[in-house]
Amino acid sequence: MRVAVIGLGLIGGSMVKTLREIGFADQVIGVDQSKAHQELAIDLGFVDECMSLESAVKNVELIIVATPVDTISSIVASVLDLVEDQIVIDVGSTKAEIIEQISTHPKRASYVATHPMAGTEYSGPHAAISGLFTNKFVVICNHQDSDPGKFELVRSMYEQMGMKLLFQEAEAHDTHVAYVSHISHISSFALAITVLNKEEDEDRIFELASTGFSSTVRLAKSSPATWVPIFEQNRDNVLEVLDEHISVLSDFRSSLINKNYKKFHDMVCEANKIKKILK
Amino acid sequence: MRVAVIGLGLIGGSMVKTLREIGFADQVIGVDQSKAHQELAIDLGFVDECMSLESAVKNVELIIVATPVDTISSIVASVLDLVEDQIVIDVGSTKAEIIEQISTHPKRASYVATHPMAGTEYSGPHAAISGLFTNKFVVICNHQDSDPGKFELVRSMYEQMGMKLLFQEAEAHDTHVAYVSHISHISSFALAITVLNKEEDEDRIFELASTGFSSTVRLAKSSPATWVPIFEQNRDNVLEVLDEHISVLSDFRSSLINKNYKKFHDMVCEANKIKKILK
Repeated sequence: MRVAVIGLGLIGGSMVKTLREIGFADQVIGVDQSKAHQELAIDLGFVDECMSLESAVKNVELIIVATPVDTISSIVASVLDLVEDQIVIDVGSTKAEIIEQISTHPKRASYVATHPMAGTEYSGPHAAISGLFTNKFVVICNHQDSDPGKFELVRSMYEQMGMKLLFQEAEAHDTHVAYVSHISHISSFALAITVLNKEEDEDRIFELASTGFSSTVRLAKSSPATWVPIFEQNRDNVLEVLDEHISVLSDFRSSLINKNYKKFHDMVCEANKIKKILK
Repeated sequence: MRVAVIGLGLIGGSMVKTLREIGFADQVIGVDQSKAHQELAIDLGFVDECMSLESAVKNVELIIVATPVDTISSIVASVLDLVEDQIVIDVGSTKAEIIEQISTHPKRASYVATHPMAGTEYSGPHAAISGLFTNKFVVICNHQDSDPGKFELVRSMYEQMGMKLLFQEAEAHDTHVAYVSHISHISSFALAITVLNKEEDEDRIFELASTGFSSTVRLAKSSPATWVPIFEQNRDNVLEVLDEHISVLSDFRSSLINKNYKKFHDMVCEANKIKKILK
């Protein structure tokens, strides 16, 4: 199949790298505003050539939109304006606002809303890795609004990529990812800032940084171009989780203030229940 | 050299496993309240035999105290009561309170206060792994209060283990670890609780948990027996960092409330500066 990918970064690049390797894509056309990203994607070998969006859409059967979430709905709409029988998917981390903005497009049925749940803290064409999605979950949202044949093809594509499929309504998806992805990023960003502020006063503090610190702060390297639009689109859900998270941290604080170590111990035991999830 | 290790968990076990492998320890005696841990440590092969504390001290040249930090000062004091020319070290994650409580002991000079900075979220004899400390930092605190010959031996031991040495006063050490280790644990505990609370209302939320979530919440599996005493001993420093961390999270919250995405973007860029530390 001929595939176009719009946005040659971590997610788009990793998608087509994988689709090529499993033989799903035999030709890949790249679309990106950045000339440097276009050249890099060709050099790295995960796209065959780069074109304008218009030319790319005409030359392929499947278009993958992998740009920051605040640009997805307008790009999907532009692609839908051009398609005949092609399939358009997006791979953004938020779904409700994007789907809402596409909902009245006459070609809505040609679009399948997806979120392959994998990533790293790196960005750009160099960050693309094949195998990123293997054994991970992909959520397909509101598929009843997509053409059944097109939905089946997308479903089959993700299965061939080795992904586990889940089907959700967009609102449920956005609530859940606020809890299991977006809050982790805010927490990491905030931890990084807390420690960097301290470093301004005291040298050499990072020599003591332990492996635990590295793992909790790893996500703080994530790109603002990707993540700020995610928080913007998922603002209400993120605010709800953030309020709860600050409230739990305040409970830890109160138990320290009051030297209530029994309470502190009980809360750590409560947190330990995460073992049933994280093996 | 004959070595005794008091406390057969992650840190004590990993220490003697390593000391044996590099040929520093040719006999290892274990001391632990738990009969099960004693047997496991012998089965796993990192101690030769187990004894009472009194017998162990008489039969070795070096004693390593690797118990939870709230028990270290009284155990070190008991060991110092028994030593003639032996060396006693502890490997606890806090230092100021322990050193203060040992400061007036007549054998204070036989004790060297250390903190090899490595760990995992697991605990008990099974968690012990050789190589845990390779290329990590070890902090030796207030070494001017230790006998110079004994200090030199401990320094040499850590160098042979492949560790990088730092020398700090206990108070500076405790402040720094609050920033680069202890706050990461509270943050993980709180994230785990936040998401587990949500799970009570909504099933299947964890199916969406991404790799980012796993890395930020990994530390939430850490043992309360190890960690609650650390927070108790380092309460004042941890409270200071926790207040700052909650304040930074509140800034993220305010910028979302006010839809001030420019401010949010600037804060993410600020957090990204952690790249200079975490490669």
